[in-house]
Amino acid sequence: MHGSDPQTLPETLIAAMAAQARAASHRLAAMDSAAKSRALLAAAAEVRAQAETILAANALDMAAGQANGLTPALLDRLRLDAGRLEAMAAGIEDVARLDDPAGRVIEETRRPNGLVLQRVRVPIGVIGIIYESRPNVTADAGVLCVMSGNAAILRGGSEAVHSNRAIHAALAKGLASAGAPADAVQLVPTTDRAAVGAMLRAEGAIDMIVPRGGKSLVARVQEEARVPVLAHLDGLNHTYVDRAADPEMARTLAVNAKLRRTGVCGATETLLIDRAFADPRPILAALAEAKCELRGDAEVQALDPRVVPASAQDWDTEYLDAILSVKLVDGVEEAMAHIAAHGSHHTDAIVTEDAATAERFLNGVDSAIVMWNASTQFADGGEFGLGAEIGISTGRLHARGPVALEGLTTYKWVVRGTGQTRP
Amino acid sequence: MHGSDPQTLPETLIAAMAAQARAASHRLAAMDSAAKSRALLAAAAEVRAQAETILAANALDMAAGQANGLTPALLDRLRLDAGRLEAMAAGIEDVARLDDPAGRVIEETRRPNGLVLQRVRVPIGVIGIIYESRPNVTADAGVLCVMSGNAAILRGGSEAVHSNRAIHAALAKGLASAGAPADAVQLVPTTDRAAVGAMLRAEGAIDMIVPRGGKSLVARVQEEARVPVLAHLDGLNHTYVDRAADPEMARTLAVNAKLRRTGVCGATETLLIDRAFADPRPILAALAEAKCELRGDAEVQALDPRVVPASAQDWDTEYLDAILSVKLVDGVEEAMAHIAAHGSHHTDAIVTEDAATAERFLNGVDSAIVMWNASTQFADGGEFGLGAEIGISTGRLHARGPVALEGLTTYKWVVRGTGQTRP
Repeated sequence: MHGSDPQTLPETLIAAMAAQARAASHRLAAMDSAAKSRALLAAAAEVRAQAETILAANALDMAAGQANGLTPALLDRLRLDAGRLEAMAAGIEDVARLDDPAGRVIEETRRPNGLVLQRVRVPIGVIGIIYESRPNVTADAGVLCVMSGNAAILRGGSEAVHSNRAIHAALAKGLASAGAPADAVQLVPTTDRAAVGAMLRAEGAIDMIVPRGGKSLVARVQEEARVPVLAHLDGLNHTYVDRAADPEMARTLAVNAKLRRTGVCGATETLLIDRAFADPRPILAALAEAKCELRGDAEVQALDPRVVPASAQDWDTEYLDAILSVKLVDGVEEAMAHIAAHGSHHTDAIVTEDAATAERFLNGVDSAIVMWNASTQFADGGEFGLGAEIGISTGRLHARGPVALEGLTTYKWVVRGTGQTRP
Repeated sequence: MHGSDPQTLPETLIAAMAAQARAASHRLAAMDSAAKSRALLAAAAEVRAQAETILAANALDMAAGQANGLTPALLDRLRLDAGRLEAMAAGIEDVARLDDPAGRVIEETRRPNGLVLQRVRVPIGVIGIIYESRPNVTADAGVLCVMSGNAAILRGGSEAVHSNRAIHAALAKGLASAGAPADAVQLVPTTDRAAVGAMLRAEGAIDMIVPRGGKSLVARVQEEARVPVLAHLDGLNHTYVDRAADPEMARTLAVNAKLRRTGVCGATETLLIDRAFADPRPILAALAEAKCELRGDAEVQALDPRVVPASAQDWDTEYLDAILSVKLVDGVEEAMAHIAAHGSHHTDAIVTEDAATAERFLNGVDSAIVMWNASTQFADGGEFGLGAEIGISTGRLHARGPVALEGLTTYKWVVRGTGQTRP
């Protein structure tokens, strides 16, 4: 009987939550930055105050996860402890200190007829966040939405359901205690997967969806969504070592770009080396000695005995592991052509001492982030000085690369006149 | 056999055009502003040089349109003459003189580790324009795309097929003569409606679709598209006359906002009048005397005998005609609630001498354009000083309100380092 009750239909549930979120977004949009900051600080305090409750809820999820045979990696993502909870609370306080973009005047012009036009930043409205096992997203994403004046509808993974509910309860209580609307951050109460579908189809009710999780989640969201999606599917990033690269810098950057953390979206997956570069062997040796598997064609295999053969799929594979495909190219133009054919428009870097070649690469590579003499692992909102990030976008419209508060706003035109009519 | 030839499948055709457009977009992105301006001036000259050919092609469309019984309004949209052709050429020259946003640095920051980050405006890439009977869109939209560094794929209406081909041939010849890629502006060669569907589903190949035309076209595009769409479906705009409005200004603005041109998207469709406003009767009288049909409830009918009864649908109807729905409300809050319930987030205006009430309205109404003491008919890229417009957007993401060159760009992050690795 449960499924036939219209109140429990996912569409009904999401429509009701979105209507409450819309009302909350109007109240949030009317709050000034100081008021939103105070609400976030109260939320952080409440997370600290409810630490025991949250950790107890997390223990339930961990026990269920172990019983259900979650992998150690997934269990680690799911796990909270005192240190992680304190980091969550401190992260909320960091967001409370960020510059609020809402209300900022982007430009102002006075027309010959006396009309004064402003473009003013305003919150987008209602943001849906769909995520998997990390319970900290409940806090991170929720408070970024609130600080930028948006209402959030959160849909976390079923394996973190108790943790998410406990964190959400603390957030909501803290926010409300400081005058923010109780519905500013809502958590979808059901783990029914149909609720995700209802969110993805809630055009006009939810203004933007941000998926946070693995490739299969992001792919499903991008495939099914009628609501605009802010996301990246792949981080198939390249580092290109040019003929004019400093050999020592090239070696250091290649190792860091691939191996600092292999599971992050900013990791380099393919190393392109100019055939005119002095000597690629020390780079390959450093990678191999750091336990990186190297894959290449016969030309690359001839450079180091540890290189194994690459297949055609390697150039299109995001390993997220200590594996690197390596290819020799004839200069920056062939490197750019390879990136255009195989890249995912996320982050690509050139290593060179030649400024003209660098500018050619920076202008010619069509990626959200292009880098000169820097590790692709810097692709991150915190490293970019944004203070936090809701995600990284490889889409071309609205926001690109790391997205924080500004990407959660849009603008409106405000026109002030003195009775002007159009002739 | 025609339909079974894979070369003629709409998907094959659009994929091939999009690949050529992508290549052209890379060449366009490498052209500086002066080079793009020169190409546009050459295109304008070529439109003038081929005036006879274009007018002869238009005569074929007009004859077919008359034979097919097109309405006088549609025939007028279709018709070109020497004056309209000169306006088209002059319009191309206007766009050639606009500030090119591509390459503009939006912001620059230096991180503590010495990395220098810039956000730089770049073209979006490949823009699809789907339009109906006005052949001038071929030139207007095509050159806006080129000036912002984008390749355009144009799909015009079948009734303007000869005109569009002739205008497109002149544009392409002019652009190429000045060094722009020949595929910078392509016209879909078939009037098969399936080609529109193929464009709408060309995710990743076409970056943005702009529909230009009537409500049924825009609705189809918004419903079917997997590619992001920049458009507005309705312009259900309100003018609210507050208790503190200047009576003379209120009367003048109401008449202009409704009647200057009734068929434009910026026309006011509903007039809201504060019950505490001195006397609504002169406003209603001025509208009625200017041949505007007025619709309202008993309270409004009591104010003027020419007011006819409004039905519930009237508050949700974009008349695009000399018809106005009129409602009395209790002040700015009820006006805003009515707009939130019935508006289309396009353009809404308040008439008042009370600055605090005006600011309440400007902040609280969630529309692309909000106005104080000005006619909603100013909702137009030219009137906003943008020099031209590709369209008006009521979407919340990417661009809002009138969209010109800047809305045809996105940005990339350019990071310049000296060998920094991430710790």
